[in-house]
Amino acid sequence: MLKPQIDTYMACDRPWEEAETVLFGAPFDSTTSNRPGTRFGPAALRSESYGLETYSPYQDKDLTDCAVLDSGDIELPMGSSELALEAIQERAAEILAAGKRPFLIGGEHLVTLGAFRAVYETYPDVCILHFDAHTDLREDYLGVPLSHACVIRRCWDLVGDGKIFQFGIRSGDRPEWQWGRDHVFCHPFDLEGLEDVLDQLFGKPVYFTVDLDVMDPSVFPGTGTPEPGGVTFDALRKAVTAVCSRCHVVGCDVNELSPHYDPSGASSAAAAKIVREMLLALDGSGAAV
Amino acid sequence: MLKPQIDTYMACDRPWEEAETVLFGAPFDSTTSNRPGTRFGPAALRSESYGLETYSPYQDKDLTDCAVLDSGDIELPMGSSELALEAIQERAAEILAAGKRPFLIGGEHLVTLGAFRAVYETYPDVCILHFDAHTDLREDYLGVPLSHACVIRRCWDLVGDGKIFQFGIRSGDRPEWQWGRDHVFCHPFDLEGLEDVLDQLFGKPVYFTVDLDVMDPSVFPGTGTPEPGGVTFDALRKAVTAVCSRCHVVGCDVNELSPHYDPSGASSAAAAKIVREMLLALDGSGAAV
Amino acid sequence: MLKPQIDTYMACDRPWEEAETVLFGAPFDSTTSNRPGTRFGPAALRSESYGLETYSPYQDKDLTDCAVLDSGDIELPMGSSELALEAIQERAAEILAAGKRPFLIGGEHLVTLGAFRAVYETYPDVCILHFDAHTDLREDYLGVPLSHACVIRRCWDLVGDGKIFQFGIRSGDRPEWQWGRDHVFCHPFDLEGLEDVLDQLFGKPVYFTVDLDVMDPSVFPGTGTPEPGGVTFDALRKAVTAVCSRCHVVGCDVNELSPHYDPSGASSAAAAKIVREMLLALDGSGAAV
Amino acid sequence: MLKPQIDTYMACDRPWEEAETVLFGAPFDSTTSNRPGTRFGPAALRSESYGLETYSPYQDKDLTDCAVLDSGDIELPMGSSELALEAIQERAAEILAAGKRPFLIGGEHLVTLGAFRAVYETYPDVCILHFDAHTDLREDYLGVPLSHACVIRRCWDLVGDGKIFQFGIRSGDRPEWQWGRDHVFCHPFDLEGLEDVLDQLFGKPVYFTVDLDVMDPSVFPGTGTPEPGGVTFDALRKAVTAVCSRCHVVGCDVNELSPHYDPSGASSAAAAKIVREMLLALDGSGAAV
Amino acid sequence: MLKPQIDTYMACDRPWEEAETVLFGAPFDSTTSNRPGTRFGPAALRSESYGLETYSPYQDKDLTDCAVLDSGDIELPMGSSELALEAIQERAAEILAAGKRPFLIGGEHLVTLGAFRAVYETYPDVCILHFDAHTDLREDYLGVPLSHACVIRRCWDLVGDGKIFQFGIRSGDRPEWQWGRDHVFCHPFDLEGLEDVLDQLFGKPVYFTVDLDVMDPSVFPGTGTPEPGGVTFDALRKAVTAVCSRCHVVGCDVNELSPHYDPSGASSAAAAKIVREMLLALDGSGAAV
Amino acid sequence: MLKPQIDTYMACDRPWEEAETVLFGAPFDSTTSNRPGTRFGPAALRSESYGLETYSPYQDKDLTDCAVLDSGDIELPMGSSELALEAIQERAAEILAAGKRPFLIGGEHLVTLGAFRAVYETYPDVCILHFDAHTDLREDYLGVPLSHACVIRRCWDLVGDGKIFQFGIRSGDRPEWQWGRDHVFCHPFDLEGLEDVLDQLFGKPVYFTVDLDVMDPSVFPGTGTPEPGGVTFDALRKAVTAVCSRCHVVGCDVNELSPHYDPSGASSAAAAKIVREMLLALDGSGAAV
Repeated sequence: MLKPQIDTYMACDRPWEEAETVLFGAPFDSTTSNRPGTRFGPAALRSESYGLETYSPYQDKDLTDCAVLDSGDIELPMGSSELALEAIQERAAEILAAGKRPFLIGGEHLVTLGAFRAVYETYPDVCILHFDAHTDLREDYLGVPLSHACVIRRCWDLVGDGKIFQFGIRSGDRPEWQWGRDHVFCHPFDLEGLEDVLDQLFGKPVYFTVDLDVMDPSVFPGTGTPEPGGVTFDALRKAVTAVCSRCHVVGCDVNELSPHYDPSGASSAAAAKIVREMLLALDGSGAAV
Repeated sequence: MLKPQIDTYMACDRPWEEAETVLFGAPFDSTTSNRPGTRFGPAALRSESYGLETYSPYQDKDLTDCAVLDSGDIELPMGSSELALEAIQERAAEILAAGKRPFLIGGEHLVTLGAFRAVYETYPDVCILHFDAHTDLREDYLGVPLSHACVIRRCWDLVGDGKIFQFGIRSGDRPEWQWGRDHVFCHPFDLEGLEDVLDQLFGKPVYFTVDLDVMDPSVFPGTGTPEPGGVTFDALRKAVTAVCSRCHVVGCDVNELSPHYDPSGASSAAAAKIVREMLLALDGSGAAV
Repeated sequence: MLKPQIDTYMACDRPWEEAETVLFGAPFDSTTSNRPGTRFGPAALRSESYGLETYSPYQDKDLTDCAVLDSGDIELPMGSSELALEAIQERAAEILAAGKRPFLIGGEHLVTLGAFRAVYETYPDVCILHFDAHTDLREDYLGVPLSHACVIRRCWDLVGDGKIFQFGIRSGDRPEWQWGRDHVFCHPFDLEGLEDVLDQLFGKPVYFTVDLDVMDPSVFPGTGTPEPGGVTFDALRKAVTAVCSRCHVVGCDVNELSPHYDPSGASSAAAAKIVREMLLALDGSGAAV
Repeated sequence: MLKPQIDTYMACDRPWEEAETVLFGAPFDSTTSNRPGTRFGPAALRSESYGLETYSPYQDKDLTDCAVLDSGDIELPMGSSELALEAIQERAAEILAAGKRPFLIGGEHLVTLGAFRAVYETYPDVCILHFDAHTDLREDYLGVPLSHACVIRRCWDLVGDGKIFQFGIRSGDRPEWQWGRDHVFCHPFDLEGLEDVLDQLFGKPVYFTVDLDVMDPSVFPGTGTPEPGGVTFDALRKAVTAVCSRCHVVGCDVNELSPHYDPSGASSAAAAKIVREMLLALDGSGAAV
Repeated sequence: MLKPQIDTYMACDRPWEEAETVLFGAPFDSTTSNRPGTRFGPAALRSESYGLETYSPYQDKDLTDCAVLDSGDIELPMGSSELALEAIQERAAEILAAGKRPFLIGGEHLVTLGAFRAVYETYPDVCILHFDAHTDLREDYLGVPLSHACVIRRCWDLVGDGKIFQFGIRSGDRPEWQWGRDHVFCHPFDLEGLEDVLDQLFGKPVYFTVDLDVMDPSVFPGTGTPEPGGVTFDALRKAVTAVCSRCHVVGCDVNELSPHYDPSGASSAAAAKIVREMLLALDGSGAAV
Repeated sequence: MLKPQIDTYMACDRPWEEAETVLFGAPFDSTTSNRPGTRFGPAALRSESYGLETYSPYQDKDLTDCAVLDSGDIELPMGSSELALEAIQERAAEILAAGKRPFLIGGEHLVTLGAFRAVYETYPDVCILHFDAHTDLREDYLGVPLSHACVIRRCWDLVGDGKIFQFGIRSGDRPEWQWGRDHVFCHPFDLEGLEDVLDQLFGKPVYFTVDLDVMDPSVFPGTGTPEPGGVTFDALRKAVTAVCSRCHVVGCDVNELSPHYDPSGASSAAAAKIVREMLLALDGSGAAV
C-alpha cells in the first residue's frame, strides 16, 4: 500500500515520542526590508540536505543516531506579523511542553520572536546568544516595531539588560550601536571571544539564534541583505558546534536563507550543513534539555 | 552648477503646476502570497522605460507632448499594510486635491486599495474596471483581510454591488467565483466584451486597475504567480488604449511586476510600454479629469 | 502531537483505498541528450501547485472533490536506465493491480517506458496517444536504445503498427520521419485533428503521454530542448481536457519539465495547471478505469 | 592521429571550393544602446544548433544536402566600430569574390553595414529587405553615426530612396518615422504584405537582414531591447522561407541574439532554427547566386 | 507640492556649494573585451547603497556628516570612446574648477582616463595609485589604443615613469609584465607593502583608481573578467581606508561592477560598501583637497 | 581560402607530432546524483580560457611555449556509462600509445575511470593522487557501481591498497570513511601534508585527478554538489603546481565544472586557470612522460 511522500530534513523522522529536538519551519518574510524570499528558505534547506550525507567527518557522528523529528512548516499568513508570531509561538510551546527542544528554521529573522516568547515563558532566566551581521536593535523600522530589523530589541523587551550576547555584528545605524553599548554584549565583526562567553553561560538556559548572514556573502550569497566582511563557513561551523555541545541550548533557530538569490545552491548547502552540525552537537551533549 | 540626478519614467518631468497626470510608485509587497519582489517593480519599470521611445507608432503620439509628472516612490514600511495604505492614500489625495489624476505603479495589488480610498472619497459614484488573472475577491487570506488576494473585495466593501467590472480572470477558489457571480460583473479568461462595458461606463468616473498578470506568462513572466492562459500584449495594449481614451478615468494603477523573476527584462519592457500607451491615451482624451 | 510534513500535489491526499488515480514521480534524467535537469521536475511541479487553486473555472470543478492520491517520488539511481525503468514499472503495476489509474510525473520522457510496460501487461490492446515536439522514434541514440529520444520506438516494440497516435511533432531526423510514416499515425506541428482520433479511440484503453515541450518555448521555456513553433497553453489545455474526459485513459504521464531553466516559474505553473486540468477531466468521466 | 575539434553550425562543414553559402560570425556589440551581450550570439547559436536536427519537417529538406561552410568568427576589437566594419567587409568581399553568398551572424545590428558595403560594391543595384522591431533610421545616436540604431540609415546613405523595404517595425522616435515615410517602404508591426514586395523584388539582387527582435520577446527574450508586440516564430519562419526561396538573395544576416539574457536557451534555439530554415530555403532555390 | 524623485548614493545630497566630494557615474562599457555590462554599474551601486547603513562601525563615522554630492550619471554614447572620455573629462574639470574632489563611478576601467586627464591638467605632478587584477598596460588591444585593457598605459603616456603604483595585479600578457618592470611600480597578487608606498606618497597629490576586480571573484563575482586569486573584502576595505585617510587624494574612481552577472547582489553590496568607506575616510582627512 | 573555426583551449594547438600533452573533453554526466550539467564543463572551460592570458605571473611561463594539443571532445552517449568509459579509454590509450600524456577534462568524475583504465594498462604500478570534497569510495550508489560517487573505489578495484592518496575530503557516508581508513591514504579537509606525499611519490608514475569541488563553493559555485568548507583557489593553485612540477604525472584530469550554476563565469574562470597552471607546471618538468 502506497503512502504519500514525507519530506523532512534528511534523517529527521523520529516519532514524536522519541524525539528530543523538533525542527519546524516558518516560511515568513513580510517585514524584510531589502530583498525578500526567505519564505522559500525552509523548503530549500530541506531539499538541499539530500545532497549532503548524514555523517559528519568533523564530529564523527551520524544524524541517523540522533533523536530528531522534522515536524514540517507552519502555514503562515503573509501580511500579518502578529498572526504569524502567534502561530510560531504556539508550535514552540507545544514542543517545549513535551519536554523537547524547538529548532526553528526561518524565514526572516522576525520569526525568532515567536519561538523566543515560548522559550521565555518556560525559562524566564534564559540568555540569548545571537550570531548576525546586523544588530537588529532598532526600536522600530519606519514606524513598524515588529520588523526583522528590530527582532533582538523585541527580545530585549522581555529579558532586559545583560542577557543578550551578540557576535559577528558589522552593520547597523549609529543609534543602534550606541544603544547596544549600554544594553547588550556585542562582539563586532567576527566570532572571536566566544569561548569566554560560553564559560560565562555554563549551565544556564540559552536560546541560540543564527542569522546566516553572519557568514560572508562569498560563502552565503543567498540572503536578502548581503553584508561583505563576514565570517567563513568553517568559523561558523566551529562556533555552532562549540555552542551546541557546551551550552544548555533550550531552543534555537537558523534563519535568513533566501534561495532565489542563490542560483548555485551553495547557500542552501551551507545552511543545511550548519543545521546538520548543530543537530549532531546538540545530540547527547551534557547540556540536553 | 551640478544638480543631483533625477530618475523618472521617461519624459514625465513636467512641473507640478502643469501636470495633469501624476505618477507615483508604491514599492510594497508584504502580503504577496507566492513569489514576492514587486517592491522592485516601480524602479525596474522606470529604468526600462529608457529602452523605449517616447513616441508610439500605435497612437502616433509622443510622451513629450503630455502633461505628466513622475513624483517618485513613497517610502513604505514592509510589515504594516495599514501604514502603507495610509501613505498611499495620502499621496493620491494630495494629487486629487490639486485636480490631477493619480497614476499609481505597484507593488503588489493591495496598493490599489490606498489609491482607491482617496479616489472614492472624491468620486463616491466611481466604478472600477479591473484587469487581472485573479478574482482578488476573498474575504480574507489565511485570516488576513488586507491581502493582495482580497483587494477587490475590500474595494467592494466601499462601492458595493454593480460597480466592479472584471476582465481576464482565470483563477480563484470556488467560493470567490460563486460570490463574484452575485456581486460583480466578471468576464473570464480574456478581454472580449470590453466595448459593451465601455459604452455602459460612458461619462462615469472610472478607476482603472491593471494587474499585469492578466497577460500570459509567456509575455509577462516577471510576476509572483504566473497563470498560463492569459491575454497577449497586443490585446492588452488595445484594451488599455480603449479604456484610457474613451473612459473618464479619474485614477488608475498598474501593478504586480516582479522584476527579479524576469532575467531578460521583457516583463519590465511590457509593463513600461503599457504605461506609455495608457499615458498617451489619457492625454487629451475627452474624458480628462 | 506533531506529525511530519507531507508534500503532495495540492489536494491529492486521498487514502489509498479511496484513490482512483495515483500520482507518482520519477525524478530521472540520465539519458537526456541536451540540457538535463528534469529530475527536479516532479518536486517543482508539486511545489508550484500551491500557487494555483484547486478550482478550475474552465471545467467548473474542484480537485478537492476528486479521488486522487499523490504517492510521492520513487528513488531512482542515475546512471542505470534499466534499474530505473524496473522501479517505475513496479510502482505502476502495483497501482494497476489495485484497480487504480497510474499518473506518472517525469523526469525525462524515457520514464514513460516503465509505466507503459506495466499498462501493456494489464491492457495488451492499449493504444498510445502521444503529444510531443519530437518523434522519439529513433532505433537508438549514439548506440543507446534506452534513450529519451527512442522512447516511443521502444513502446512500438511492444504494441506494433497502428496503435500509436502522435500530435504536435515538429522535430526529428529524416529517418525517424520516414520510419514514422509507415508505422505510426503522426499529426505534425499542432493538435488539429484530435477530435477524429478521439472518435476512433472511443472505448478503447488508451495510454496518454504528454511531453510538455509540445508547448511553445514561449509558454514553456523550462525544458531541455526548446523547440520553437509549438502549441499554446490554451490549445494544450483544451486537448488534454478532451482526451481525459472522452477517452478510456488507463494510464498517463506528463514529463520533461526542467525547472532550473525556468527562473520565473512560469513553466512549472503551466505544467502544474495541465496536471490539474487532466485530473479534473479524468475524474468522473464515463471512461474511468 | 587526433585533430583539434572544429565547431561549426551543425552540418555546415563543406570544403570552401564546394560551398555556395558561407557563414561567418561577427561577435561585436560596442554600440549597443541598451543591454549588451550580442558578442556572445554567434557562439550560442552554433552551440544550440546541436540540439536541433539537420532535417526540417517544414521544408522536408536536410542540411546535410546543402553546400554550406561555416567559416567561423572574425576576431573583432571592441571599441572601434570602423575597424570592426572593415574586417567584416573584407571577409564578405572575399566570399563574394569567390562567387559565394555571405551569410553573417551578429553581433549587434551595426555589423550588417560591413557585410552590406561588400555586397553593394558587387551589386550596386541591390535592394534591402529588413525585418526588425526598430526602424534603425537615426542620423546619429548621441552624436555617434556608426550605431546599431542607425545602421539602416547608413545603408540608405549608399543605396538612396526606394531600395529599402522594412517589415515588423514597431519602435523608433518620431523623427525616424517621419523621415522613413519619405525614404523607405515601411510595413509596421507585422509581416503582412510581404508577398507583394517579393513579387516586386523578383529577379533583383536582395540583401536580407533579420534583426531577430522582430519576434515577440515571449518567443525571443534573449535580446538587448525587448519590444513587446512582435511576430510569432511561425510567422517569421514562413516569411524567411518565402524570402530565401523566392528572392535572389545575394547576401544576408541574422543578428541581435544576446544569450546571457536567455537562461532557458529558447532564444538561441529560435535563432538557430531560423538560420536552418534560411539555409534550407536558399539551397537550390532558382535564385541562387 | 510634489517634486520628482531624486536617486543618489545614500545620503549624498549636499548642495553643490557645500560639497567637498562630488560623485558622478560614467555608464560606459564599449571597449570591454570579455563580458560587458558595467554600464549598469553606477545604477546598481546606488540602488544597493540603500540596503546599507550610512554609519560605518569600522570607522565609527556616519555619511550624513560628510559633505558629498552625488551629481548623477553622464549620458554617454556607446560606440565612441573619445566622445565618452571628453564628456567625463569635462565633468571632472568642472568639479575640480570649483575646488572639489571628483569621485567617478564606472563603467569599465577606460573611464578613468577621462577623469584622470582633468586631474592631470590641475595637478601635473599627480601620482596614480592603482588597485586591479590586471596590469592594463597594453599599448593597444587588437589595434585599439583606447581600451579598458590599455587605460593605465594611456595614463602613463601623460605622467611617464615612476608615477604609477600598482597593487593586486595577477593577470596580463608577458609583454605587459615585462614593460611594467621598467616603467611602473607593480606589487603583484595582493595589497602587501601598501604602507611603504603611502609613506612615499605622503603629501603628494594622488589619483586613486580602484578596479573592483582586485577582489577575489568569490567576493565580487559581478565583473566582466573574473580572476580567481584576488584579495578579500576586508583587505580591500582596510587598504582603501588607509589610502583615503592618509593620502592627498585629489580624485578617485571605483569601476568594473557588472551587476547582471551578480544575481545575489553581493557584488553591488561590496562595491557600495567600498565607496562608503572611501567617502568616510576622505572626509575630514588631513589630506582634503 | 577560408577554413572552419577551430575552438581549443587557448594556445593548445600544437600539431599532434609535437604535442607532449593532449587535452580531450568528456562531456558526460549521466550518473550525477545531485545537480547535473557537467556535460557543459569542457565547452565552458575552453570558452572562458580566452578571458585569461597565456602567461602566468605565478610561474613566469607562457602557454605559447608549451607543447600541448587540445584534441576536442569525444561524442559520448548519455545513458550508457560503459559505452562512454570505453570511448574515453580508447582516446586515452591512443594518446599514451604515442608517448604523450592524456589530460582529460570532465564531465562528471566517473570519466576518470575511462582515462585511468588506459593509464593503468600502460603503467600497472601507477599511483593515484586525488583532490576532492568527496571520498567517492562507495561500493555502489543505489545499486549502480559505475557512478561518480564510486569512481575512486572502481580505481581501487584495479590498483588495490596503498596506491591512492586523497586530499581535501570533507564529505562521505560513514561506511565510506570507515572503509577508506583501511584501504587508502586520506587527508581530510585541506591540502596540508601534500609535500610529504610528493616526496613519497618521487619518481613513480602518478595519475592526478582533480575534482574541482575540492575548492570552496565561494570560489567554485558551479558544481553539482557544493560542499562548504573547501580550500581556496590559491591553495589549490599552489598544490597543483607542486604536483605537476615535481611528480611523474603520466595522466591527469580536471572535472565536475557545471557551468549552468555559475552565472558569473567565476567557476569556469577558476577551472580554466587551474588547467593553465597545470599545463605550465607539467611542461619541461623533470618528470615529463
